[in-house]
Amino acid sequence: MSAPGFARADRFLGFDAPYDEAVWILGGIPMDDTASFQAGSRFGPPRIREASFGLETYSPLQDADLTGRALHDAGDLELPIGAVDRSLRAIEEAASAVLEDGKRLLALGGEHLVTLPLVSAARRFWPDLVVVHWDAHADLRDTYLGERLSHATVLRRVAELLGDGRVFQFGIRSGTAEEFQWGRTHTRFFPEAVEAPLRSVLGELSGRPVYLTIDVDVFDPAFMPGTGTPEPGGITPQEGFRALMALAGQTLVGADIVETMPANDPSWRSALLAAKLVRELALLVTAGGDA
Amino acid sequence: MSAPGFARADRFLGFDAPYDEAVWILGGIPMDDTASFQAGSRFGPPRIREASFGLETYSPLQDADLTGRALHDAGDLELPIGAVDRSLRAIEEAASAVLEDGKRLLALGGEHLVTLPLVSAARRFWPDLVVVHWDAHADLRDTYLGERLSHATVLRRVAELLGDGRVFQFGIRSGTAEEFQWGRTHTRFFPEAVEAPLRSVLGELSGRPVYLTIDVDVFDPAFMPGTGTPEPGGITPQEGFRALMALAGQTLVGADIVETMPANDPSWRSALLAAKLVRELALLVTAGGDA
Amino acid sequence: MSAPGFARADRFLGFDAPYDEAVWILGGIPMDDTASFQAGSRFGPPRIREASFGLETYSPLQDADLTGRALHDAGDLELPIGAVDRSLRAIEEAASAVLEDGKRLLALGGEHLVTLPLVSAARRFWPDLVVVHWDAHADLRDTYLGERLSHATVLRRVAELLGDGRVFQFGIRSGTAEEFQWGRTHTRFFPEAVEAPLRSVLGELSGRPVYLTIDVDVFDPAFMPGTGTPEPGGITPQEGFRALMALAGQTLVGADIVETMPANDPSWRSALLAAKLVRELALLVTAGGDA
Amino acid sequence: MSAPGFARADRFLGFDAPYDEAVWILGGIPMDDTASFQAGSRFGPPRIREASFGLETYSPLQDADLTGRALHDAGDLELPIGAVDRSLRAIEEAASAVLEDGKRLLALGGEHLVTLPLVSAARRFWPDLVVVHWDAHADLRDTYLGERLSHATVLRRVAELLGDGRVFQFGIRSGTAEEFQWGRTHTRFFPEAVEAPLRSVLGELSGRPVYLTIDVDVFDPAFMPGTGTPEPGGITPQEGFRALMALAGQTLVGADIVETMPANDPSWRSALLAAKLVRELALLVTAGGDA
Amino acid sequence: MSAPGFARADRFLGFDAPYDEAVWILGGIPMDDTASFQAGSRFGPPRIREASFGLETYSPLQDADLTGRALHDAGDLELPIGAVDRSLRAIEEAASAVLEDGKRLLALGGEHLVTLPLVSAARRFWPDLVVVHWDAHADLRDTYLGERLSHATVLRRVAELLGDGRVFQFGIRSGTAEEFQWGRTHTRFFPEAVEAPLRSVLGELSGRPVYLTIDVDVFDPAFMPGTGTPEPGGITPQEGFRALMALAGQTLVGADIVETMPANDPSWRSALLAAKLVRELALLVTAGGDA
Amino acid sequence: MSAPGFARADRFLGFDAPYDEAVWILGGIPMDDTASFQAGSRFGPPRIREASFGLETYSPLQDADLTGRALHDAGDLELPIGAVDRSLRAIEEAASAVLEDGKRLLALGGEHLVTLPLVSAARRFWPDLVVVHWDAHADLRDTYLGERLSHATVLRRVAELLGDGRVFQFGIRSGTAEEFQWGRTHTRFFPEAVEAPLRSVLGELSGRPVYLTIDVDVFDPAFMPGTGTPEPGGITPQEGFRALMALAGQTLVGADIVETMPANDPSWRSALLAAKLVRELALLVTAGGDA
Repeated sequence: MSAPGFARADRFLGFDAPYDEAVWILGGIPMDDTASFQAGSRFGPPRIREASFGLETYSPLQDADLTGRALHDAGDLELPIGAVDRSLRAIEEAASAVLEDGKRLLALGGEHLVTLPLVSAARRFWPDLVVVHWDAHADLRDTYLGERLSHATVLRRVAELLGDGRVFQFGIRSGTAEEFQWGRTHTRFFPEAVEAPLRSVLGELSGRPVYLTIDVDVFDPAFMPGTGTPEPGGITPQEGFRALMALAGQTLVGADIVETMPANDPSWRSALLAAKLVRELALLVTAGGDA
Repeated sequence: MSAPGFARADRFLGFDAPYDEAVWILGGIPMDDTASFQAGSRFGPPRIREASFGLETYSPLQDADLTGRALHDAGDLELPIGAVDRSLRAIEEAASAVLEDGKRLLALGGEHLVTLPLVSAARRFWPDLVVVHWDAHADLRDTYLGERLSHATVLRRVAELLGDGRVFQFGIRSGTAEEFQWGRTHTRFFPEAVEAPLRSVLGELSGRPVYLTIDVDVFDPAFMPGTGTPEPGGITPQEGFRALMALAGQTLVGADIVETMPANDPSWRSALLAAKLVRELALLVTAGGDA
Repeated sequence: MSAPGFARADRFLGFDAPYDEAVWILGGIPMDDTASFQAGSRFGPPRIREASFGLETYSPLQDADLTGRALHDAGDLELPIGAVDRSLRAIEEAASAVLEDGKRLLALGGEHLVTLPLVSAARRFWPDLVVVHWDAHADLRDTYLGERLSHATVLRRVAELLGDGRVFQFGIRSGTAEEFQWGRTHTRFFPEAVEAPLRSVLGELSGRPVYLTIDVDVFDPAFMPGTGTPEPGGITPQEGFRALMALAGQTLVGADIVETMPANDPSWRSALLAAKLVRELALLVTAGGDA
Repeated sequence: MSAPGFARADRFLGFDAPYDEAVWILGGIPMDDTASFQAGSRFGPPRIREASFGLETYSPLQDADLTGRALHDAGDLELPIGAVDRSLRAIEEAASAVLEDGKRLLALGGEHLVTLPLVSAARRFWPDLVVVHWDAHADLRDTYLGERLSHATVLRRVAELLGDGRVFQFGIRSGTAEEFQWGRTHTRFFPEAVEAPLRSVLGELSGRPVYLTIDVDVFDPAFMPGTGTPEPGGITPQEGFRALMALAGQTLVGADIVETMPANDPSWRSALLAAKLVRELALLVTAGGDA
Repeated sequence: MSAPGFARADRFLGFDAPYDEAVWILGGIPMDDTASFQAGSRFGPPRIREASFGLETYSPLQDADLTGRALHDAGDLELPIGAVDRSLRAIEEAASAVLEDGKRLLALGGEHLVTLPLVSAARRFWPDLVVVHWDAHADLRDTYLGERLSHATVLRRVAELLGDGRVFQFGIRSGTAEEFQWGRTHTRFFPEAVEAPLRSVLGELSGRPVYLTIDVDVFDPAFMPGTGTPEPGGITPQEGFRALMALAGQTLVGADIVETMPANDPSWRSALLAAKLVRELALLVTAGGDA
Repeated sequence: MSAPGFARADRFLGFDAPYDEAVWILGGIPMDDTASFQAGSRFGPPRIREASFGLETYSPLQDADLTGRALHDAGDLELPIGAVDRSLRAIEEAASAVLEDGKRLLALGGEHLVTLPLVSAARRFWPDLVVVHWDAHADLRDTYLGERLSHATVLRRVAELLGDGRVFQFGIRSGTAEEFQWGRTHTRFFPEAVEAPLRSVLGELSGRPVYLTIDVDVFDPAFMPGTGTPEPGGITPQEGFRALMALAGQTLVGADIVETMPANDPSWRSALLAAKLVRELALLVTAGGDA
């Protein structure tokens, strides 16, 4: 029983299917690497949902509409703030439960470390999983400030989990010399650009289960000022959307869009760009009518 | 059926009772007088909820804790954006439904016009209802820009609905000459201060069903910059909280806190002050253990 | 008689000709779809004027200077705030009066709905008028929130007024499926880009009276954050200026630049970009020496 | 001849009398100590005018209305940006012209140095002029960075011009040891508070021609963040308005309100407080019906 | 050997004595509870130093001047970012070294947890140390998110270290029920106000070595928006400065001013208030001429 | 003797060599054309240093690392605020001293006028010096507001000092007609673009001592909002970095990066872009191992 007329107002635009009927589930993972109030990407998911109402359900790019698609917004995961280990376990469990229900997860960060449990859950369902990673930063450190689990080490952990050559990294324009060296050896490592190198590997990806992780700082901070570690020199929204369209026909089995930190962007364009990525990705993965 | 672990993240701190067990229901009324994206108080309720997690459930002021109180957060009312008449009807219906369930409503605006249908619904349950109104502005115009239904006319409509002497206005420091004249004749009209004049009428309020409406611009914009029509010279938070405590023992049957517009306050203090008002008010009205 | 030395400080840079000697008249139309203080594009014209003093009167792009051109800044139209019908009539009357004086109008919005009365006035002088429209949004809905007159329907109304094929739309990257369908049938509809498709129709425009309406959200919000409905993925200033230059030699008989909302851009670059559009457009239309 | 319907939109709320019929003239003095675009108090006057439309013409404090008062807004003085000496001469000439027309000037800064030529002009009409000065800073240095004419020396120059004991300084909470020493010797020097010490000297002021200069940083930066040199620990708006009311019945012959720098206050409350000071001061000085 | 003319520009205003000749040493402790770039109080010390140049060296309140006082600014402690344990050890060692040189330390946070090692170091020199604590929050949790060392537990740890009744807490207006309970039992616990209760215990403090720790969120966020966990309802700057003056004559042996987070305060007033606290405190502790 | 553990925290990332061992010296020149607190580029150097810690020491672009390079950060020059002539002399003396020590200077502005004394000092060591200038503005006025020494005249003065054809100007997109005319006659003048025209003159530069001055407003304000006179239509960071790389192999003997004004950019991306320019330039000039 509930108050008639009222509803939790935080559903993403057009993600209106009940959980049971949905194929793709949107879920916020409001974890960030700090317990302090008001800082960080923890505020990303609610702001991206709000921003989604500044968009349309129709995408001119795909000539397609969110209306009627098998999309459900589950809200945000409830996490013990600041307790990294417990949070990572909770994320992996929640993701596994969604997958066990025969569904797929589109996660909104939160910080990039959430990708580790999400990939870990997906890998149990798709052992030959490959990861497509867009980012300004390599995130390939072995440890960061003495920690092995950090937003700066997350792709290193993912790459170790999946094995060499299973992570495809695009757009990387920042890292240590060691990270770049490690990347060139252990991942498919493409600095600076996203679209062109991604197109060059589409044949390799074809038919394999693909997990897509987008750190929004892959975009130049002019287009995405609302992120925690902006790095000048990134891609444009146009390149991002073209690269997304290049994935049409691939077997996407999971995805996340992380590191949106809306606090320092009074213009809303950061949350809007993240929301538009969600819309285009959701349309892409449900294009065939059955996910 | 739902995604395990996930939840809509927008419950106000400590408003954790199920609807059925709650006595007071928090509900957002995200209506503002504009259809344009990103402007206005429509964004108030979600931001106040987020801010509530920067507070504690415990109130030193009342030596009381939200934990275990019969408080439920119903989320936000779904409204047809921009269609004023339809929205007002929807608000009145939703409020009536809550009241018919034997519960009481603590509403979060949104603009001040939402008070009209809320009071109208309450009046059908408590015909001798009186309204206690805190505001920087009299809101007593007969028409505003040719319209009879507006945030600038709302208390005039409420006063006409209830009859002379049933609206008690406090803190008013802005209006037209006509509004001040009308107020002095038809309402109990107390300019500038809140606490002292409120204490002076407590005897009159005693035993009567009281509806409390707080326009947050009653506070000085130094303390509450996040509001649509800031007016210098307002009260301090301390005066506001003392005035709230003065209402202990009164029969509050409904309340709203309106006009929080968080967009232009990067410090969060506006949403925090609104959230603290919610906490103190919720503790006050549930202090007796049965509402 | 006036105070010597003092002057209204709100003339746009270089628009110094008296009304009688001017051929093009700059006029602000500070209408937006909300009566609430501080929100919206109502504050666009004064801020664009202020920003103009951050530019030079000389344009390297055209090797031309505003000094001595037949340009007058008439100030802003005085409008009844919030009364849409009356405002639209007042705008059409004011525009007609300027046209009857043998002059042409360069209008600064304000919201996009102001284009309807401006085109309506121009059409009475140039019955074969065509409209060139730059925008992120199609603005082709039949109704929006139950209203036929809205910033989201304005180009539909304009297209109905002029007849099929008389509106040329460029840069459109957002709308409903119905709008895109309607556009493809009834207007000359060019999504995403501006410059290239505009060049492709220059022959068709040649010799016809052209009205140019620029919604500044055609630019990516990185370059133009100060607008009400930012949409990621827009054009650069460079594309905009090249497209403007492509109009050299066409018969421009009226123009507007709308939807600049400076409030959320502390860097001034939104108002500066709008002001630079004004400068380049003004130089373009007065390039021949007689308008 | 002008464009019908259009008007320069920068008149202060209610300052609608023609120059010839007005007794008090509002004039902006957009001088600041820097030629750089966008910095400083040069943008104060236009923003204060805009903000005035967020207020009412009616003052509850004085139960009086701007409507019909003999008040004219002359716009802003046109000044050679950056050329201090020429600007000071232009200000003195413009002020003198207004006074020669039998009118009085209410000036809006701009920086505090503008008070020097304004007082100098007034002194020629009222040789026994006294100055009432509200400020956070003493402004009594002999030189600042080697210059004798500066916002940090302006009251020293004014005091030297008028002679000892003719400047009454209130609210001062910042300065060098030398300034405080000089102030205690040469001016009537009242640190920290405004209202109480002002009331203590009303008898002395009575019947003498009074020039009032308000540096808005006399208010605490919580209430007035939009100023160039904020100093924590200032007065509240309430104290400011009470102090203003204490001047009722005095012979005010000129006034200025300076140092509003709206750029870093997204909440508008700084410009609103300045505008409210203008309204209250204008009502006060025209209360008698003939000035 | 160094570049002539160049200097590290980060000395606090007037803290110009060489280390050897100074009695009080200012030192920044740029630790915050997050490794993420740009968030938090880590940026406090440099911004407070910058802001200090917006003040004067002279204090009207104390009729005293920083010039010539035995004050040295040592810069900031270099800390391993994110490694809490190592940072706490480094802070205690650095503080001990200063104390062993016969000097006293005025520390600038950084987060409040830095007070623990600072007090720990001081206690070895003054075993009967008492702590005077100003704060909005009790900071008396036993654990926070499973951690015993946190900004939310720091005063609990300090109180346990020193023993019951040795911590005097003022201004507390937020905490859990347990914290308030613990405080009432184990510390000298004064909620809400600072000045009056502080005056009431001056006799008890007299002659004992006092360590003063000021969390800037004791001030209302209107005056101090730049802090991580703003809590509405705080004290004014005036109350803060009066309370500071009340400590004249006490034996202050160490102090810190923590939790200034300048990022979200474009007006600079937060850093200015912190800087003014530094100035007044520095003048107070060096008033006797020998520390 | 100093406080152990403490250090001035304002060294640029990786500029860790002692002065004696360094070949290139980073020095801030915090001069701007205004004495007013908080405005202007005076705050550029400290903010750029802070931002540098958001970057890595490793540059993927050059596959090179700042670690171990002969780079020293000397801090900021101490300048008499507001005294232009004295400041210019002090800058020239400080620069000369660095050059006499056999080192080279990488200066951080501050306003563009600082380039004049920096070039003047360099010219005495390299009489055949040429200047490479990136800017949005020509800065070629003869006088500006009656002054011959101004940020708007600085390249004119530099060009007069060095003689015709010795200044190469790139990216210019704003100026008066006279400036463009003068530029085309006296400098090597390339409007709009940077990279392509720079590549076209590399042969001419080869073997000559080159001084590089970058006004950060050469970048579009979308990428660099934090600057005093933003001008829409600028280059991207990518073009800037490619152009920088084009200078590899040239004999750079001095450089400056000026006009970063961080105040109005809450996203930090302006300071980050300036810091990244410093990193890339520093790696470039020390690439050979001996400067």
